[in-house]
Amino acid sequence: MSGWLAIAGLGPGDAALVTPEVEAALAEATHVVGYIPYIARVAPRAGLTLHPSDNRVELDRARHALEMAAAGARVVVVSSGDPGVFAMASAVFQALEGAPEWQELDIRVLPGITAMLAAAARAGAPLGHDFCAINLSDNLKPWVVIERRLRLAAQADFAMAFYNPRSRGRPEGFARALEILREECGAHQLITFARAVSTLEERINTVTLVEATPEMADMRTVVLMGNSATRRVGRFVYTPRMFPGEAGTGSPSESARAQGSGQVE
Amino acid sequence: MSGWLAIAGLGPGDAALVTPEVEAALAEATHVVGYIPYIARVAPRAGLTLHPSDNRVELDRARHALEMAAAGARVVVVSSGDPGVFAMASAVFQALEGAPEWQELDIRVLPGITAMLAAAARAGAPLGHDFCAINLSDNLKPWVVIERRLRLAAQADFAMAFYNPRSRGRPEGFARALEILREECGAHQLITFARAVSTLEERINTVTLVEATPEMADMRTVVLMGNSATRRVGRFVYTPRMFPGEAGTGSPSESARAQGSGQVE
Repeated sequence: MSGWLAIAGLGPGDAALVTPEVEAALAEATHVVGYIPYIARVAPRAGLTLHPSDNRVELDRARHALEMAAAGARVVVVSSGDPGVFAMASAVFQALEGAPEWQELDIRVLPGITAMLAAAARAGAPLGHDFCAINLSDNLKPWVVIERRLRLAAQADFAMAFYNPRSRGRPEGFARALEILREECGAHQLITFARAVSTLEERINTVTLVEATPEMADMRTVVLMGNSATRRVGRFVYTPRMFPGEAGTGSPSESARAQGSGQVE
Repeated sequence: MSGWLAIAGLGPGDAALVTPEVEAALAEATHVVGYIPYIARVAPRAGLTLHPSDNRVELDRARHALEMAAAGARVVVVSSGDPGVFAMASAVFQALEGAPEWQELDIRVLPGITAMLAAAARAGAPLGHDFCAINLSDNLKPWVVIERRLRLAAQADFAMAFYNPRSRGRPEGFARALEILREECGAHQLITFARAVSTLEERINTVTLVEATPEMADMRTVVLMGNSATRRVGRFVYTPRMFPGEAGTGSPSESARAQGSGQVE
């Protein structure tokens, strides 16, 4: 038995955004498990069995993948974006929690380009300063928690990325989120609606908070809310690296001397 | 003139985490600009000029890259991780702000695997629920802002990723951050120190908040703080997809039926 399980991120849609690490895992796999539209992104080949499933059965899917790996299969669980951001990695570890016999399996998480990073890149650099990522779906937490997090994030002046802003089942949630943001943030703060990033249906639309409407988001949209310093430059939107109020002061060369790297190794 | 500028993320270190999109841009480039250790990750070849620079000259570097692109060169500005997360994209747009003559240039941001996603993948799924990313460097903002954001993020029960936790120049900052987290969070909340992820020097260390010491982080570390529900399963750390308090109730199959997707398209 030399089974393994890889929980892999396919990125936002474009094959040029899938990492070589994920491609290699898919090339070695005997089974791929995932939500139907993500499985559709995996090229069929001899020796590879695809297991598409619906989108509300994450734990069943995770257990199925673990079972196959335990039986010696080479299994990839695919998510779009990054598997650790509102996707399958947590579901697999939750399934693992109830099954100590599987905990010594060869399990790896393979990161991917998550939707907010792809969307931010297309818009410019709206997440260029401290930011947060919030799943607006209230399937997994009560709305009161979402509201509280939105208010605290706004008070912290975080830029924000919203996943799952809107679904057919709960169209009112995102309208309420916009109301809360209007109460907590400036009317002219910029908000970017990024739909189907890196696919043929990509559409990027930046408006001010006062102009934003719930209909601007659908199930394929990630929403990026700027902080109080986020601004336009030409066709781009960016959030300065420095604290609002200190941004844009001084000449570029003076700023450069006064500023640190802001980069991580 | 057919110059262009791509601001590209090289991922955390491993070549298997560089996207094909970034590889393609590097293959077409005539010039690559960046901080010395990131330039060292770009393979030299005939026709490609490498421009390594120090890590406190982001705006000068950005202006240099824009100048070369405006003169017809094909220029890639490289960052580690993702260029839009505490890296060069914001610096380029800041430089662009002062130079309207460059705003019609062909400029693209190419996303990358940012450090927190690579680190989270190695640890398990500590960012599996709502989270925030905070740059702990106080070069670009006053410490009081960092402290305020830490407290608000803890009150929101966000998981947190900390970039630039510690540098030679300001060893005391991260010690203060840990003190604040101890005031706001539970003593046994899990915190992961992920050093040099995906390189030969990689080291992942998860402890409880009460056990954490400033020395556990250095300049090559990204720190991942769990939320109140983050827990260990086997050798992994994960944050449940559902709201703390509702997590882990019911059998896996019951939970599966009760839960939504939590995934983004």
